[in-house]
Amino acid sequence: MSFEAAVHAKALQLDHLCLEMCATAGSGHPTSALSLGHLATVLLYHTMRWVPDDPRYPTSDRLVLSEGHAVPLIYAACADLGAVIGTGERRRPMTTNDLATLREADSALEGHPSPMEGFPFFDAATGSLGQGLSIAAGLAVAARRDGLDRRIYCLIGDGESREGQIAEALDFIADQKLSSVLPIFNCNGYGQADAVSEQQSPASLARKLEAAGFEAITIDGHDPAAIRDAFDRFIANSQSGELTAVVAETVKGWGAESLQGGGWHGKPPTGEKLQEAHEELNATGVGLTSSLVSDELKIYPPNEHTPVELTISEPMSFADAMSHYDLETVFKSGRLATRKAYGLALRVLGHANPNVFALDGDVKNSTFAEWFANDPELSDRFLECKIAEQNMFSVAVGLSAAGKVPFCSTFSKFVTRGFDQIEMAINSGANLKIVGSHSGITPAADGPSQMGLPDVAWFRSWTTVRGHGGNPGCYVLQPADAFAAYALTLAMAEYDGVCYLRTVRPDVEFIYNDATVFNLGNLEVLTKGRDLLIISAGYMVHECNKALDGLDKAGIDATLVDLYSIPFDVEVLLDLANENGGNILTVEDNYGGGIGSAVADAVADSGDAFTIEQMCVRRIPKSARTEEDILRLCGLHHTDITRKAANMLGLVGV
Amino acid sequence: MSFEAAVHAKALQLDHLCLEMCATAGSGHPTSALSLGHLATVLLYHTMRWVPDDPRYPTSDRLVLSEGHAVPLIYAACADLGAVIGTGERRRPMTTNDLATLREADSALEGHPSPMEGFPFFDAATGSLGQGLSIAAGLAVAARRDGLDRRIYCLIGDGESREGQIAEALDFIADQKLSSVLPIFNCNGYGQADAVSEQQSPASLARKLEAAGFEAITIDGHDPAAIRDAFDRFIANSQSGELTAVVAETVKGWGAESLQGGGWHGKPPTGEKLQEAHEELNATGVGLTSSLVSDELKIYPPNEHTPVELTISEPMSFADAMSHYDLETVFKSGRLATRKAYGLALRVLGHANPNVFALDGDVKNSTFAEWFANDPELSDRFLECKIAEQNMFSVAVGLSAAGKVPFCSTFSKFVTRGFDQIEMAINSGANLKIVGSHSGITPAADGPSQMGLPDVAWFRSWTTVRGHGGNPGCYVLQPADAFAAYALTLAMAEYDGVCYLRTVRPDVEFIYNDATVFNLGNLEVLTKGRDLLIISAGYMVHECNKALDGLDKAGIDATLVDLYSIPFDVEVLLDLANENGGNILTVEDNYGGGIGSAVADAVADSGDAFTIEQMCVRRIPKSARTEEDILRLCGLHHTDITRKAANMLGLVGV
Repeated sequence: MSFEAAVHAKALQLDHLCLEMCATAGSGHPTSALSLGHLATVLLYHTMRWVPDDPRYPTSDRLVLSEGHAVPLIYAACADLGAVIGTGERRRPMTTNDLATLREADSALEGHPSPMEGFPFFDAATGSLGQGLSIAAGLAVAARRDGLDRRIYCLIGDGESREGQIAEALDFIADQKLSSVLPIFNCNGYGQADAVSEQQSPASLARKLEAAGFEAITIDGHDPAAIRDAFDRFIANSQSGELTAVVAETVKGWGAESLQGGGWHGKPPTGEKLQEAHEELNATGVGLTSSLVSDELKIYPPNEHTPVELTISEPMSFADAMSHYDLETVFKSGRLATRKAYGLALRVLGHANPNVFALDGDVKNSTFAEWFANDPELSDRFLECKIAEQNMFSVAVGLSAAGKVPFCSTFSKFVTRGFDQIEMAINSGANLKIVGSHSGITPAADGPSQMGLPDVAWFRSWTTVRGHGGNPGCYVLQPADAFAAYALTLAMAEYDGVCYLRTVRPDVEFIYNDATVFNLGNLEVLTKGRDLLIISAGYMVHECNKALDGLDKAGIDATLVDLYSIPFDVEVLLDLANENGGNILTVEDNYGGGIGSAVADAVADSGDAFTIEQMCVRRIPKSARTEEDILRLCGLHHTDITRKAANMLGLVGV
Repeated sequence: MSFEAAVHAKALQLDHLCLEMCATAGSGHPTSALSLGHLATVLLYHTMRWVPDDPRYPTSDRLVLSEGHAVPLIYAACADLGAVIGTGERRRPMTTNDLATLREADSALEGHPSPMEGFPFFDAATGSLGQGLSIAAGLAVAARRDGLDRRIYCLIGDGESREGQIAEALDFIADQKLSSVLPIFNCNGYGQADAVSEQQSPASLARKLEAAGFEAITIDGHDPAAIRDAFDRFIANSQSGELTAVVAETVKGWGAESLQGGGWHGKPPTGEKLQEAHEELNATGVGLTSSLVSDELKIYPPNEHTPVELTISEPMSFADAMSHYDLETVFKSGRLATRKAYGLALRVLGHANPNVFALDGDVKNSTFAEWFANDPELSDRFLECKIAEQNMFSVAVGLSAAGKVPFCSTFSKFVTRGFDQIEMAINSGANLKIVGSHSGITPAADGPSQMGLPDVAWFRSWTTVRGHGGNPGCYVLQPADAFAAYALTLAMAEYDGVCYLRTVRPDVEFIYNDATVFNLGNLEVLTKGRDLLIISAGYMVHECNKALDGLDKAGIDATLVDLYSIPFDVEVLLDLANENGGNILTVEDNYGGGIGSAVADAVADSGDAFTIEQMCVRRIPKSARTEEDILRLCGLHHTDITRKAANMLGLVGV
């Protein structure tokens, strides 16, 4: 049997399985899957070096299925090859019987790819479109760093390629010269609702790829030899460091004419329609049914992997780091911005842990990731992602899948660009660290387009969910001073999961020291009183501290808690509230839904009666020249806090 | 004086003003502004047809400053020209004295462009990068619809052009053949932290623009004649329907050599450095100081605008609409998905209000925006934005600025892609309607990559803030049935501001009728009891309704509230809670921070003692074949609700 015939026979076999499994599931996208039949067959049965026994083998080539809805085709191939699924004691080779469980509640065969429900073939969850190529790029960066000869294939839908993140990923791949990544555009001509735009036609995509510096190879995506030759060309190019992309012209519902055109996206045929599709497929492969096994379809194993023992050392203390990096004068000044302490911690971590990567979006001199970037021993683990945040977060997901510990920093306002990507990171079980600087209202003069305002509420939503490992979907961390920022950055690195560290621009006074222990999920009592519990975090802790002076003069003995982590220890907080007459005042420099709501949730849950007042940003801010101006404008100046607290306790005119 | 000399003299004048105002403000981006001096001078003093007396005159050409940080240059020109600033009684011509107020708390001169603080020259807030070109496209669509000969100029930074949204906008402009938009890439070679990537070099940008179907004209961005000629070429092209873009090679800190290179982003020189910069600038313009006025710099007025009286009629009732569009059989079935009722309402609205536009992201057959799109009388107001949500939301901002009422729909999961754009829309005072379908966990089989899960918490954060008009920054609307979805869609259209309507996939039973009145900010009591207040919304209202049966059998007399709006009437809700023994159970099909927290906030604020339990999605969902399966998996099945409610009241084993 020739290579062509073998591929065709195998693709047909997988296509039949796709139709069958989607019909059984009653949902899925069989026509998208059929458009991938030949491409995926050549990849999985010929070009990719991998071992079905161990789909995550460290040196194996990787496939990122960016167009996640086409996943039935991959399930069919993995079932045919007996690829291992399940985790722990449930690990076992897959069989074609498994395909009937597609999309069931206890099945590893998710509707869209996910490694977290028992399908280790994939590195990350996909299905929200446009993210796969960035993930592939992250895997490639990690492989290069580890000296592994891995190639990363990424299948991208043509409709999907409209997502701007694809353009961001192409630019990143070009900047980083990641010739080991092959973007393969599956141009079947149809999105969900309609034909794709002329802008996503094979010709237009090829022009755009060439403009971005790729050799764009346009092929018939159902021609086995053309596919193989294109992949061979990529392999040759990748060895000489040139960038390649494949533009494959395919047919949605290939082989099953009655399913072609625009009407069958996400609709599995059943009954007579299914039978008709099977017969149409069969008609394309007359004479191929005798033997599907062929020497032509040989899977080549990856190189033997020699594990490297990495030494992770204990990072030095903040005081030592300040001294070590010639910042003693600053240290003695007793003031430092939390963003700078983050930069310092990142640099120290970079030396202590060779897995730590830093990614930034053209603001490294604002986030202070530059202290990592500019260190010659670390600069090869710094990735300048430029002004393209979506790509940055998904690259980090790829890095994480390869065992790295990526820290992504930008203004917290611009973190917003990547919230879909971050959610997919959480769904992927990624070990992602997000650091948003210039949070809250203290970027004052720049105005609201540069301020992170709903960020605490948004990240908090994920803290309410248990991730696959049982931990919170996310931790929100708000350091109030440089000691806290330093310690929490180190704590993030030790923790396996998604964290959001919220830093601010202004220099603030030290309130802690190296003896203070900061743990995810904890809080710190700064002042202990008995009349009122003030709960704050980050920059506003300082404003609250000033307010305490005013309250003291008014004879109010308040407790001040630095709630630097969400989630936090609810019991401890409620005990403190009870010790303070049940009077709680929360103070934040962000929109509602953050700490105030977290405390309200906890209090409501307790069923006890408390009096809570929430101070937060209740108007859209505008520019103001100083921090004092903006605090006054938003009613969050320390005198506002004093007044509100006094009013709560029945004192007027303080 | 020649045109060249006149432009040069004027640019110099503006450049000096920029340096001065940033020095006074103590912040700002003078070097970015200086790179725009000649481009903006030719635009504002020659090419653009506009009237400084009335910067928003309906037929005037528009300038969208996507690279918002360069705004001092525009302020300088507007001050020089006496452009009107302020609103209402504070409207007055600007003077150069105003420049000294840059970034002050009571100044209209925001750090980044905003029309909402008294600077009507701009149509929308910019400053979070990469969004301006989409806004420009929206303005152009509106102008075409209104038959106005407006041209839309958009200044884009080279670093900024890395944002994938720029690629999305170019594709959209090409799809829509918006030849009246001119993207002008200001290639000064530097981002914030560093030089821009080779991928954003003038040559690379020009290649990419050509690949996207634009004639890319590369010019020296400080050569007045070259600028004028490029703009003239654009005008000619736009008349013949061809797409044009300008790639302008510029110098960051042009004219002030001591400020050039990478070190001066966002840093205003003061003192001696300022003096040096002024002197350097002066040296470039020897002999030009005599007269800055020249016939060469004549601003051409826009065409006279003849207001058109639009007839907005009363939309028909839901029952009438179902009948009118031959859906009587469905109506009699008593079941319809809220997404379909939205589609119907959108279609009815399209006929009733000629300002209504519908935008969708290649899922119109899922969101049911297709009922608008496929109506031949409405299809020219339907914009298929393809799989590029960021662009969709910003296009809507442009439409809104031109007086349109844009409805943007996609899966609520994919709305996430545009949260930064939506925040900028809120900051812009835009009249944006967002409709997220397939919300919550009921997309079951597709898995979490297709589910809107933190959406309620995220949008709720904006509801806690007052916008510029005093209304909430956003309304979150969750219709429980088709009547509610229909009525709330109509209510959204009547309201001026941002709303998020959350629809779900499954067909659900009717629980309302056309007599029910739905108002933003209200709630509906479905069942009145005395033991327990159950609060829910959307799909979960039906699950709660079923739970009531179980509770009834257990002798529990519960109240059920459909909290279809956030914000809501807190007083009414607390009264209901008190009538139900202070026992509250919230039930949601989303992650925490939504209704449960909104109620907890309200309760906490009241200071009374209530017992609240929150049921929401507390794990990352996975695929499950049926709605029943996924509800059980997430502990939100009606039997779970019954059990929880009974436990709250001390009954075990129900």
